[in-house]
Amino acid sequence: MTVSALPEAIDLSHHLSSLARHRFPSPLKDIFKQMQREGIISMAGGLPHPSLFPFVDASVSVYPPSADLSGPTPSAADRMSLNFQKYPSDKGAIDLSTILQYGQCEGLLPLRKWLHKFTLDVYEPGYSNFEILLHEGNTSGWTKVVRLLAEPNDFILCEEFTFPSAMAVWVPMGCKAVPIKLDGQGMRADHLEEVLANWETTHPGMKRPHIMYIVPVGSNPTGSTMQAERRKEIYEICARYDIIIAEDDPYTALQYPEFDVSAPSAEVVHQSGEEFAKSLVPSFLRYDRDGRVIRLESFSKVISPGARLGYFVCNPVFAERLLRATEVESQTPSGWSQGIILSLLETWGQSGYLTWLSRLRDTYQTRRDGLCAAIASSFTALPARDYAAGVPGAEGIALYHKGTDPASIKPDQRPIATFVPPTGGMFLWISFSLSLAPRFRQLVAEGAQDPEKTFMDEFWEALAENLVLLTPGSYYLPWEGVDKLTTSARGAPSGIGYLRFAFSYEEPAVMAEGIKRFQQVVSKMFDA
Amino acid sequence: MTVSALPEAIDLSHHLSSLARHRFPSPLKDIFKQMQREGIISMAGGLPHPSLFPFVDASVSVYPPSADLSGPTPSAADRMSLNFQKYPSDKGAIDLSTILQYGQCEGLLPLRKWLHKFTLDVYEPGYSNFEILLHEGNTSGWTKVVRLLAEPNDFILCEEFTFPSAMAVWVPMGCKAVPIKLDGQGMRADHLEEVLANWETTHPGMKRPHIMYIVPVGSNPTGSTMQAERRKEIYEICARYDIIIAEDDPYTALQYPEFDVSAPSAEVVHQSGEEFAKSLVPSFLRYDRDGRVIRLESFSKVISPGARLGYFVCNPVFAERLLRATEVESQTPSGWSQGIILSLLETWGQSGYLTWLSRLRDTYQTRRDGLCAAIASSFTALPARDYAAGVPGAEGIALYHKGTDPASIKPDQRPIATFVPPTGGMFLWISFSLSLAPRFRQLVAEGAQDPEKTFMDEFWEALAENLVLLTPGSYYLPWEGVDKLTTSARGAPSGIGYLRFAFSYEEPAVMAEGIKRFQQVVSKMFDA
Repeated sequence: MTVSALPEAIDLSHHLSSLARHRFPSPLKDIFKQMQREGIISMAGGLPHPSLFPFVDASVSVYPPSADLSGPTPSAADRMSLNFQKYPSDKGAIDLSTILQYGQCEGLLPLRKWLHKFTLDVYEPGYSNFEILLHEGNTSGWTKVVRLLAEPNDFILCEEFTFPSAMAVWVPMGCKAVPIKLDGQGMRADHLEEVLANWETTHPGMKRPHIMYIVPVGSNPTGSTMQAERRKEIYEICARYDIIIAEDDPYTALQYPEFDVSAPSAEVVHQSGEEFAKSLVPSFLRYDRDGRVIRLESFSKVISPGARLGYFVCNPVFAERLLRATEVESQTPSGWSQGIILSLLETWGQSGYLTWLSRLRDTYQTRRDGLCAAIASSFTALPARDYAAGVPGAEGIALYHKGTDPASIKPDQRPIATFVPPTGGMFLWISFSLSLAPRFRQLVAEGAQDPEKTFMDEFWEALAENLVLLTPGSYYLPWEGVDKLTTSARGAPSGIGYLRFAFSYEEPAVMAEGIKRFQQVVSKMFDA
Repeated sequence: MTVSALPEAIDLSHHLSSLARHRFPSPLKDIFKQMQREGIISMAGGLPHPSLFPFVDASVSVYPPSADLSGPTPSAADRMSLNFQKYPSDKGAIDLSTILQYGQCEGLLPLRKWLHKFTLDVYEPGYSNFEILLHEGNTSGWTKVVRLLAEPNDFILCEEFTFPSAMAVWVPMGCKAVPIKLDGQGMRADHLEEVLANWETTHPGMKRPHIMYIVPVGSNPTGSTMQAERRKEIYEICARYDIIIAEDDPYTALQYPEFDVSAPSAEVVHQSGEEFAKSLVPSFLRYDRDGRVIRLESFSKVISPGARLGYFVCNPVFAERLLRATEVESQTPSGWSQGIILSLLETWGQSGYLTWLSRLRDTYQTRRDGLCAAIASSFTALPARDYAAGVPGAEGIALYHKGTDPASIKPDQRPIATFVPPTGGMFLWISFSLSLAPRFRQLVAEGAQDPEKTFMDEFWEALAENLVLLTPGSYYLPWEGVDKLTTSARGAPSGIGYLRFAFSYEEPAVMAEGIKRFQQVVSKMFDA
């Protein structure tokens, strides 16, 4: 299908916030038009002269895209070189006098074009007139989306456990989360439908939610990845209830096959860049005939976070309003970051970039496998029945104390903990059956206000004392207002607590040592 | 006086906006604390591993600080080199695995320390516990200040002509400007006092302004620079009326002596870095015993705009709330930008950086002189009496048609135009006596709604047709609401129009050609 056969985005401008509506275009537009005139002398723009930038030239040496990422740093002969000159004389050098000057707020045009083609080829959006706009990473991008769409006190649809930094922008605005229940694939379509169908009953007189925030690949914190069929269902519900989907997708390249507990150290087979691209679950963009998806993609996880660079893919009306905000809020991402990543992508080419992503995915997959295997081998691990990640019916692995004879486990015997091996991203999410912990039972007996929270805080402290640092599950609880701060007030199931493990940073051998320490604390705090 | 002898900032937290008050600290703080433990294994943070960043090393070659900026690019032997390595082995190389990782939201610590010492030595703040926080350039910084302090519909004190991008953030919030009249030094203390003393009468029932936005050096668009005595007066008024001063000071290094029309091509005498620092007009920080100044400084005009890097100097309470906003809105400026500017500043040293600034100032001063001289020599230029920049009593230069015999000019004869030669920054601001233009008189006779605006638009178009591009003065009119859109509704003096000339970009010879074209249009459109 050619691009032109696809529909254009529908008019979704009624979603814009009052703030976004009232932004006005820079008056300088008239000036930019005149600057194109042949022979014009411009004393209009307050640009410093590039001859007065102190930078002459720069070079950055980088890995080739198919570098062995588990091996040593490539030797000098194997590296590729990115070149920058103030007044380029070398072919292929990036012009420092352009990237270090004030720039177009949309971002460098050749970089946007590169990403437009990449988006078209890899994500195949379902409508034709999508646009690319650079931003300073997905945290900044999502903040711009909130200001684009949300009014104070709006409700925002999100996963039952969600990324706390994403909430930090809208909580001070008085907005509240509408958490949607999860299973092993992430957000459940049936619960989304239920919440929206019953909104007037459950929230009489309150404005319906019109914004969804979702991390569909390697969800933070649960590590789940939503498959194609579920995405279609969710998209159709959002289309029916007129909801804008903010697809926060920094981990999109980090998609893993199911972890095989019976072959935990299976060799990862490298794919070509093209095979890799085909293997990816479709973005929500694929189903987006209306232009109601705002895709947030970032180079943070796949190139480096310090670049503070990513991009929006969205409909032209939203792109124009985001641009107006960008003019005021950040102007452009760093020219150094834009220039270096442009040069890197041009040097590698699209196929090379896909190869890089694929190798990177393989490396993180090895870490995922290492963490899962270390956990499984430190406990008696069995297929989970009803308690994986606290979600009835989810697939996953149930953990009993090490040395427990599987044959001795009764059909209704609760495991200490369960987890769904992550299928994407950088995180593994474990749920604990707190009723198996004497201290938790004591807290309940004493009538503690939120025994789950108190116990998990103590558990986390004990882990830190034993020199293993994890992230408390409570960080990921969606903010539903001051009246829903305890486990019971939220209506959450009692007796379950959560921890998040990141497998992105430590080497597998170090993680294995960390899991040993973790197991020691668990064996002390949970019934033998 | 030692730092410790200075007072600490007073409590100004009542200025915080509702949004700023409701921001909450990142829950990750507890985790950062634990990460310091000896021997801890962290699976807490979702950091990508730096071995998976594709960058091996980088080098940037730069000018020495005392480079001749009017000459050719320094030869390779004269350049200095900035070095970056993923795992530094060379002394002095910047660590790519740090600057390209997620970073502290305040900015790189060694850069903040460098800037703290610079601020202490060069600006000598009047209180002891000021803090430094990096931002992504002053546009972004000012946006954060607006969200820190302003509620929707607040009034904001600013100069009678002000930077339009600074308004673009608060106009959509429903805020309105309170313009303060100008003279050749910028904002007039007497008018500020008058506006604040009479607020209840002129704005019954409306919230008093508590935020001032000011560009005190090389004001955009007027090019004026406020001297020490005036700053003291303004500060005292702000202290009395409890106003927070946002000192937007990107041009602070670009301070020029008065232009001498009788010696327009005087050689600029270079200063040492230390002499240069002493020659600067004091920042508002100098008088800030309370901590009510938020200084916005940027590397855009003095290193390069594309770095998108600058910094706040402010009291600890504001710094903490700005940090909370930064965590959500941008996290950190680009690591490439921070690392490169840190390395540049460390390589140059403080004295070297001051030398660089001083040479840069000299270069822009030459351009300022060139533009002023070109204008003066294209007209009959005399000392202005009452009409310079439309401001009664201001110093400046009055322009009559070329060839006019000064002796023939009557004492009450209006000049075509007047300007105050800029004493800072990048801009020159000209006011025109429109009653001398037949087309303007025609518009008035026809009862045009805003004859000043219509005439100036036509004048600007005619200049562009004649291939000289300037910025219309109307861009700089403070937004006072939809009922104050015309010259008469604003209560502005009738029959005056404005244009802004930038002298930062074009070479002096090119500017001279531009002024020739400008003069031709003026000679056609204004009475002979």
